[in-house]
Amino acid sequence: MRTRATELFGIEYPIFAFSHCRDVVAAVSRAGGMGVLGALYFSPEELELELKWIDEHVGGKPYGVDVVMPAKYEGAELGDAEEMLGKLQGMIPAEHRKFLDDLLAEHGVEPSTETAHRALLGWTDQTARPQVEVALRHPIALLASALGPPPADVVAEAHEKGVKVAGLASNARHARKQTDVGVDIIVAQGTEAGGHTGDVSTMVLIPEVVDAVGDETIVLAAGGIGRGRQMAAGLALGADGVWTGSIWLTVEEADTPERAMPKLLAATSRDTVRSRAWTGKPARFLKTAWTDAWESENSPGTLPMPMQFMLIADALPRIARSGDGELVTFPVGQIVGSMNQVKSTSQVVYDLVEEFVESMERLNRITED
Amino acid sequence: MRTRATELFGIEYPIFAFSHCRDVVAAVSRAGGMGVLGALYFSPEELELELKWIDEHVGGKPYGVDVVMPAKYEGAELGDAEEMLGKLQGMIPAEHRKFLDDLLAEHGVEPSTETAHRALLGWTDQTARPQVEVALRHPIALLASALGPPPADVVAEAHEKGVKVAGLASNARHARKQTDVGVDIIVAQGTEAGGHTGDVSTMVLIPEVVDAVGDETIVLAAGGIGRGRQMAAGLALGADGVWTGSIWLTVEEADTPERAMPKLLAATSRDTVRSRAWTGKPARFLKTAWTDAWESENSPGTLPMPMQFMLIADALPRIARSGDGELVTFPVGQIVGSMNQVKSTSQVVYDLVEEFVESMERLNRITED
Repeated sequence: MRTRATELFGIEYPIFAFSHCRDVVAAVSRAGGMGVLGALYFSPEELELELKWIDEHVGGKPYGVDVVMPAKYEGAELGDAEEMLGKLQGMIPAEHRKFLDDLLAEHGVEPSTETAHRALLGWTDQTARPQVEVALRHPIALLASALGPPPADVVAEAHEKGVKVAGLASNARHARKQTDVGVDIIVAQGTEAGGHTGDVSTMVLIPEVVDAVGDETIVLAAGGIGRGRQMAAGLALGADGVWTGSIWLTVEEADTPERAMPKLLAATSRDTVRSRAWTGKPARFLKTAWTDAWESENSPGTLPMPMQFMLIADALPRIARSGDGELVTFPVGQIVGSMNQVKSTSQVVYDLVEEFVESMERLNRITED
Repeated sequence: MRTRATELFGIEYPIFAFSHCRDVVAAVSRAGGMGVLGALYFSPEELELELKWIDEHVGGKPYGVDVVMPAKYEGAELGDAEEMLGKLQGMIPAEHRKFLDDLLAEHGVEPSTETAHRALLGWTDQTARPQVEVALRHPIALLASALGPPPADVVAEAHEKGVKVAGLASNARHARKQTDVGVDIIVAQGTEAGGHTGDVSTMVLIPEVVDAVGDETIVLAAGGIGRGRQMAAGLALGADGVWTGSIWLTVEEADTPERAMPKLLAATSRDTVRSRAWTGKPARFLKTAWTDAWESENSPGTLPMPMQFMLIADALPRIARSGDGELVTFPVGQIVGSMNQVKSTSQVVYDLVEEFVESMERLNRITED
C-alpha cells in the first residue's frame, strides 16, 4: 500500500496504533504499521526505560510517542509542576472527596493508605514537557499531541531533530489551529473514538478536515476503526491512513488491567459513554457504575482538568484490585463491540490488511463495467 | 454501478433519497437513484395526491414510500385513531402546555386560534395503516418503515404486491428483529443521521449490521452520507447502497420552510443535537432555542411518543411564520455542515457519483503495486 503516510515514514501499511503498552507499540511497527506509545502515565524516568526497551525490540522500524499537552486546563498559571500540584490539591472541594469515598465504600473498595498525587503525569504543559525531552532523545519518528495544538517551541524542536509532529483534532477549526503551528499530520478523530473525543462522527469529520487543512497536510482517520472495512472507509473518506487505539487493548501483548479485560471483550458497541468522570474533559469510556455514579442525581459534578484525575488517581489502582468490580471502567471506543477475541498484535495487523483487501475487491466489483 | 440494491430495483446508482417533498423524490429517481417519500405528515387523501403526482412525474422509474410504525408508543391500546387521539390529548399535563405557551410568548410567536390535533398523522400504528393502504395502491417499489419492525401483515401485504420492504435500524439487535419479520432491506443508520437515531456511529454500525443479518439481506448505510467520499465509505463498510436524507433539504426543489433554510445552509457539523423535544424519542435536530429550552432547568421534560408531537404540532406552523425565529429548528444530521449551497436535485446526485468515482480512483492508486 502506498499513501503519503506510508511514504513519509517508510512503513508498509498506513496503520497507526496508539497504545500505552510498549510490547504492542513494538509489535505493530514490526508488523508493518507504526506503533505510538502513550506517554501520559509514565514519569520521565519510566518513559526512558520504556523507550529504551522499544529501541531494542522494534527491529529498526519507526515508532512514535504521544504526549498530552492540553491547550486549556486549570493551573496553567500556577507555577512549576510541584507548586501547581500542591495548589490544585488544595482546590479540590471536600464535597467531591466525600462523594468519591462514599462511592468506593459502597462498592467495597479498600480504603486509601496514602495521599498520592504523583499520578498526575502529563495532563499539563508543566508535566508533559519532561516527557517530550525524554522522547526526543530517542530515535522516534513521530511526536503526537492530544488535546489541542502543541506549543510552537515543541514543534520546532521536534522538526529540528527530524521528528514529524501529529495533532489530534475533533473538528475542522481545531485542525486548522494545529496546522497553523506547523503540525505535519492531523489525526481527525470522530466521536465514536475511545478517550477524549468531540461530538462529530468520523464519517462526517474526515472529509471536512481533509478539505480544511489542504493538500500539504496528511490526515489520519480515527474513531471507530478496528477492521479492514473501516480502514477502507477511512481511506475512502480522504485520509492517508488510520489511527487506531481501542483494538490494541485486547491483544495478547496488552497490559490491560485484569478486571477490565473481560468487560472489554463482552461489551457491545452500545456499552460506551462520553463522560467527564475520568479527566474532567469529555472522553469515551466503558459505561459502568463509575460513569453512572458521576452522572447521577447525587453527583457533585466533575471537576475541571486536571483536578478530576488528581481526585481519582489514587483510587484507580484500588478499584482495579479490590471491591465488587462494578466501578472498573476503561477508555475505549464504540469499536469495543467488535473486540470479542484475544489475538496477537501481528494477527490484528494482518486481519486489518486482509479485510481491507477484500473490501477493495468488493468495491471494484461494484464499479466494474 | 452494480450492487444487489441496484439490481433489485433496476436503478443506476445505489443512492436512496428520503424526502417529504414529491419533487425531490421524482427528481432523484429520474436521475438514476431512488426517491422515497416520507408519508408521515400527509393525510391519506393528501398522500393519494402526492403519489399520483409522482406517478406522473417519475418517468417510469422506481420510487418508494416511508411510513412510521413505531413498535412502542403511548396509546397503542387506546382504541382506534379517533378514540386514541382524544384520550391522549387529555393525558397531556397542564404544566407542559404552560411551558410551551410561555416559551412561544417569550419568542413572540402568535397565539393559537384553534386546538388542532389533526397534525398527529402516522406516528402510530392506527394512523399509519391508512397511509400504507394508499401507498400500496400505487406502483411503488419499496415500502420503508422507521422506528422498529413493521407489523407482519403489512410485510406480507407488500410482498404480495411485489413491493420490497425496508426497515431502519440503529443497532444489530434491532436489525435482526426486522429480518425476523421478513424485511428485505435494512437501513442501518448511525447516530450522526438526522431524525430518529441511536447512539452508535455509522462507521461502527454498518459492519456490525452486515455481519448480523447475513448474506440474504441487503444493507443500506445511513447517517453522515452526503458526499461521494462518504458514499464510497458506506460501500467499503459492506453496504449495498446508501440512504440519504438531510442533503435533500437544501436542493432547489425542496419545500423546506423558508426560515429553516438559511439556518441549514449556515450550520456546521457541530450545530446539531439529539433531542426528544420534537417527537418524544431521541432524534437529531438543528440545535436552536427550541432544543435548548426543552433541555433547560425550567423544562418539565419531554412527553413520550406520540404525546410530545401532539403537544407541539399546533405550534409548529406558527413558529414557522411568526416570532423572532429563534425557535425554528429542523430534523437534520451532522452532514448539515457540508450543505452550504443550493443545487438542483439532479446536480446533487451527479456530484455524489462524481466524487465517488474520484474516491475509487484514489483508493486504487493506494493499492496498486
